[in-house]
Amino acid sequence: MTGESEIIERYFRQVFADGRGVRIGIGDDGAVLSAPDGTDEIVVSCDTLVEGVHFPKQDGSGHAADLGYRCLAVNLSDLAAMAAEPRWFTLALTMPRVDNDWLQAFSGGLRECAAEANIALVGGDTCRGPLACTIQVIGFVPKGQALLRSGAALGDAIFVSGDLGAAAAWIKGQKDAAVVDLAGLESRFWRPTAQLALGKALRNLASAAIDVSDGLVRDLAHVLSASHLGARLQLEQLPLCESLHKCADHEKTVKIAAGGGDDYQLCFTVAGDRQEELERLGYELDIRLTRIGETTEGDNIDISYHGRPISLGRAGYSHFAE
Amino acid sequence: MTGESEIIERYFRQVFADGRGVRIGIGDDGAVLSAPDGTDEIVVSCDTLVEGVHFPKQDGSGHAADLGYRCLAVNLSDLAAMAAEPRWFTLALTMPRVDNDWLQAFSGGLRECAAEANIALVGGDTCRGPLACTIQVIGFVPKGQALLRSGAALGDAIFVSGDLGAAAAWIKGQKDAAVVDLAGLESRFWRPTAQLALGKALRNLASAAIDVSDGLVRDLAHVLSASHLGARLQLEQLPLCESLHKCADHEKTVKIAAGGGDDYQLCFTVAGDRQEELERLGYELDIRLTRIGETTEGDNIDISYHGRPISLGRAGYSHFAE
Repeated sequence: MTGESEIIERYFRQVFADGRGVRIGIGDDGAVLSAPDGTDEIVVSCDTLVEGVHFPKQDGSGHAADLGYRCLAVNLSDLAAMAAEPRWFTLALTMPRVDNDWLQAFSGGLRECAAEANIALVGGDTCRGPLACTIQVIGFVPKGQALLRSGAALGDAIFVSGDLGAAAAWIKGQKDAAVVDLAGLESRFWRPTAQLALGKALRNLASAAIDVSDGLVRDLAHVLSASHLGARLQLEQLPLCESLHKCADHEKTVKIAAGGGDDYQLCFTVAGDRQEELERLGYELDIRLTRIGETTEGDNIDISYHGRPISLGRAGYSHFAE
Repeated sequence: MTGESEIIERYFRQVFADGRGVRIGIGDDGAVLSAPDGTDEIVVSCDTLVEGVHFPKQDGSGHAADLGYRCLAVNLSDLAAMAAEPRWFTLALTMPRVDNDWLQAFSGGLRECAAEANIALVGGDTCRGPLACTIQVIGFVPKGQALLRSGAALGDAIFVSGDLGAAAAWIKGQKDAAVVDLAGLESRFWRPTAQLALGKALRNLASAAIDVSDGLVRDLAHVLSASHLGARLQLEQLPLCESLHKCADHEKTVKIAAGGGDDYQLCFTVAGDRQEELERLGYELDIRLTRIGETTEGDNIDISYHGRPISLGRAGYSHFAE
């Protein structure tokens, strides 16, 4: 079976034309584009959420508001990872039928997220079909200041924002409630916070960044691959969400947090001599920023837990992997 | 049952924020947006095509290349109707499984259409789910020169480009091949030509424009409603596609052409004293431009066939109408 990056590489790379103001096209959290006469660059990204794949089947309008919020939030997270300021978005909504209660709730959640990020809906398409929602976000960043995956340098420290594992634990808890304490986890899954302020503050400070959507290790691997580097990770350093802290088996929970997705935190790299600046920034923004490793030569990710090498198995999520 | 415009008005109007550089948001073929520091305006539009709704079920990879072409072409048609120059697009593709032959063909058709319009794919998302494709196009237009639906004036002549009815006849012919001569119609359905050159040439000449996607009369009604006008249409003037010309019942075929959708021609209004200029333009671009009526006071569309009033019934396509 073919994974998403392979599909893009094999079939759609050829549709990516060069020139036309495309500074970064394929292969980052968003595209970076030069307007014909602008000094800012345009950042574009899009994401689809499909019922039964990215979110549970909608039973009545129970989670419609959450879904509206989440659809936009996961797209904003891509702008955050590019250090872009959100400006506009379009919405393509496919629905099996018109359910007024569902639409009322969905649009309410969408509006809430849009208001928080100060982003305006400027167009869209609604049509009949299986429930799915594609949002495209458009943002701006001063020329040359977008945070790319490819900017990491040898020896840079690797950081992650906030804490990890809440969404993964919630999904796990749905199947086996005994494993985790579900209290407070539901909203972490449905209403993730895009790290927009942090993204902007990392301009000219971080060397590379990505948002953690498919799982920390899997997403970090994209940064390392784009930057032609390897990494050493100290997994005992991972900032765990509170519910996971309560778990007895720390090593197991750390693995959940490293492999599970849907965190929408930023994972980024910073030159060693700029960590003090970063510390001040975390303090100013009141965001936890945790050093979890450093980049190395080669293309391996060496993962240790209290000094002992451990394996994560197949960490992270691939849409088309078996 | 609620129609698409009503859904947008009722649920999503409130998510359209004012300000933030939004000159035209909801309610035209695309949004018109001011970049923070640009002199050109940005035009954005998006459209979704869903299997079994907008195109027949895919049986193997038979029409995959056509589908790739069509997905982009219908979006380009919206840029044409705004008089915008295409620049970039994103693609969100949802597929039940990875079918390499299908993907090869689909991306080939997409590439063909992209090359013709000189537009670059800059990002996207592929994921598992029912077959559907959402494309968002981004284009540019000199400030203030976008063709809006709202610009028509009283007494303006109403024109349509090219000929009408090919796609509608093809769809009809699928069910009843006796009615129409299908030869040559298939490609008219699958590979519509967005009228990009015409759209650009109509800047500063047409007063309003829309692309004919849901049916001529239905789409014209959007222009009239946005411009607070009515219209008189002389249906015997309609430019019919060649296959329909062969039909014995001219009145019936004219109705098919007026009510059927998927033509992707431009319907536009022009001040009476500029029709000579328009004639020259049609000659230069080698595009048939046909006067089919004129705008009137009020909000009715009076439709006649050789001087006799006729009714079209429910003309045009609504996704959620029963």
